[in-house]
Amino acid sequence: MFFVTVRDHIMIAHSLAGTVFGPAQRMHGATYVVDAEFRSPALDADNIVIDIGLATRALGEALAPLAYRNLDDLPQFAGQVTTTEFLARHIHGELAKRLAGAFTGTLKVTLLESHVAAAGYEAPL
Amino acid sequence: MFFVTVRDHIMIAHSLAGTVFGPAQRMHGATYVVDAEFRSPALDADNIVIDIGLATRALGEALAPLAYRNLDDLPQFAGQVTTTEFLARHIHGELAKRLAGAFTGTLKVTLLESHVAAAGYEAPL
Amino acid sequence: MFFVTVRDHIMIAHSLAGTVFGPAQRMHGATYVVDAEFRSPALDADNIVIDIGLATRALGEALAPLAYRNLDDLPQFAGQVTTTEFLARHIHGELAKRLAGAFTGTLKVTLLESHVAAAGYEAPL
Amino acid sequence: MFFVTVRDHIMIAHSLAGTVFGPAQRMHGATYVVDAEFRSPALDADNIVIDIGLATRALGEALAPLAYRNLDDLPQFAGQVTTTEFLARHIHGELAKRLAGAFTGTLKVTLLESHVAAAGYEAPL
Amino acid sequence: MFFVTVRDHIMIAHSLAGTVFGPAQRMHGATYVVDAEFRSPALDADNIVIDIGLATRALGEALAPLAYRNLDDLPQFAGQVTTTEFLARHIHGELAKRLAGAFTGTLKVTLLESHVAAAGYEAPL
Amino acid sequence: MFFVTVRDHIMIAHSLAGTVFGPAQRMHGATYVVDAEFRSPALDADNIVIDIGLATRALGEALAPLAYRNLDDLPQFAGQVTTTEFLARHIHGELAKRLAGAFTGTLKVTLLESHVAAAGYEAPL
Repeated sequence: MFFVTVRDHIMIAHSLAGTVFGPAQRMHGATYVVDAEFRSPALDADNIVIDIGLATRALGEALAPLAYRNLDDLPQFAGQVTTTEFLARHIHGELAKRLAGAFTGTLKVTLLESHVAAAGYEAPL
Repeated sequence: MFFVTVRDHIMIAHSLAGTVFGPAQRMHGATYVVDAEFRSPALDADNIVIDIGLATRALGEALAPLAYRNLDDLPQFAGQVTTTEFLARHIHGELAKRLAGAFTGTLKVTLLESHVAAAGYEAPL
Repeated sequence: MFFVTVRDHIMIAHSLAGTVFGPAQRMHGATYVVDAEFRSPALDADNIVIDIGLATRALGEALAPLAYRNLDDLPQFAGQVTTTEFLARHIHGELAKRLAGAFTGTLKVTLLESHVAAAGYEAPL
Repeated sequence: MFFVTVRDHIMIAHSLAGTVFGPAQRMHGATYVVDAEFRSPALDADNIVIDIGLATRALGEALAPLAYRNLDDLPQFAGQVTTTEFLARHIHGELAKRLAGAFTGTLKVTLLESHVAAAGYEAPL
Repeated sequence: MFFVTVRDHIMIAHSLAGTVFGPAQRMHGATYVVDAEFRSPALDADNIVIDIGLATRALGEALAPLAYRNLDDLPQFAGQVTTTEFLARHIHGELAKRLAGAFTGTLKVTLLESHVAAAGYEAPL
Repeated sequence: MFFVTVRDHIMIAHSLAGTVFGPAQRMHGATYVVDAEFRSPALDADNIVIDIGLATRALGEALAPLAYRNLDDLPQFAGQVTTTEFLARHIHGELAKRLAGAFTGTLKVTLLESHVAAAGYEAPL
């Protein structure tokens, strides 16, 4: 199994509804350093898993609608608790849309939210 | 597959019996930066894999009996070589006890022991 | 010159008024990983620059009023643009209040806001 | 499943033939920080996955022929595009040769090429 | 004293003439992760040391002529040994040209060349 | 001002006498990732601050007597509390002895003891 990882980041505001979130129920924010890892059993004719330029652009495009936003205001998240896990799956879905046809394999999206916490989502594309 | 990771650390002394360990047979020590990664195929009603506060507390409790200790003196490790791999499984077991009922899925425990070495243990909970 | 550094973090929301901030004029947020470095020309009788437990608690207390908050709503920041530089000086001032008498020397506060950007403030205490 | 990781690095020059590589078609270079992760379902009598000294030496030996080299000049890579993915599999193969008999399990080789990109290869040994 | 740091990177080939460089006399290469730290005693009316967008663009422009290049072929480095220290000063000079008028203070340029080595240059702008 | 940094590490046991150390009064241990930064106002004829091979060997030699040791048993530390600050100055002194004649400038030694704490010592050589 081969894999390639690219990294980007977003800075967002949101609030998390639910008593389990304690003080994070208040409006606050996060920097998410986002890793997209592409896994494939074979290399193509160029000896690559995926064009790293394409992967980087797709990640940038997937993140752009969230960048410098209050997620509580975005229609695509209405009625949703925008946890780190949830956002990882959302970004995974956005990457899937952009890379359909260009990549077949497994995609793992990891959001590093501080030096002591991270979350992510992994599924075939 | 979703996942969440939390991080904590311990500073311990120990000696490793066995010629394979070379100079590490002597009394020495380590800082272990400990990552606990929880993996689950689904999110709960709060859009989370596990309550990150609960995970952090459980990790702290699993590590507390080892913190600032000489592992050679601890009865729970009598007759054992406390390698990084062994300690990862031990911490995994302690987390399993504390989180039984609260989390179903796979738990991966990684101990970073320097900027050039790490070890860990991964198994379903 | 001796020095000791401790690390903690906060997750906040804010908006930055001023055209120079571009999209960051919108409500968004950040994780700030905060390093407090204490510098002193001499060690005390315990061979330390500062009690690391005291430094860690003081940093936690300095950050607590900001944690999981929208900085735009906090009275102590009314009329201020809460840039990373500004927040570093604010945290520096809060640490100075808490550590007056306990530490004499230079304090450097660094806020890491992503994998590609940081800011800070440094001054004698 | 247990695992152990060791880290080393190389600094190499190469050029990547193929329009997909854009400016990287030119002679350039890279620092690859190389992680070798050994995974095994069981520990041996010494409570280890693999002798970490042996793993570190094997990684150093696998990397030595590439260190401070222009990969375009090396006969073992003639006619090959030496992408990060390709090099990860090459190093995997070199480690396999050196550790045959000493380790049974899965080996994952990761090459970190910058703060925003990595690639690797994983397969049973 | 306030400071702001931005990060970018380049991947280059070069050879280092001089017996002190041992195997690095051969054609090889490096990834340099480049940090530019701007230090100033005061904030401007926007509560910043420097517009972080401007700093990031200036760093990108200073690095662009080196990116994916064999430094041995570049006329601006003819007759020079392109050590990490030398390159740090070169990038410092390029940033100085681009930011003259926009920033007054001290600029520190650090090039991280692996997980175990770095070099840099620091001087007033 | 130019600078070069090299990194190595040690794993040691010790206990810290003094009530200020709380649980660290017990026998425990640490991994210290050690950075030695050499600062000089000028480059030599090879465009370097110091031969990085020499610096790396000197750091390795300075650390070797401490590696895999219980510092409480070492005669050179008898009657001393081996705090991180104290050890940084000790390593500084050992490097000074080894590099007298080969380097003139300022040396900064930093010991990273976990992901949340570090200490060091800086002085002219």
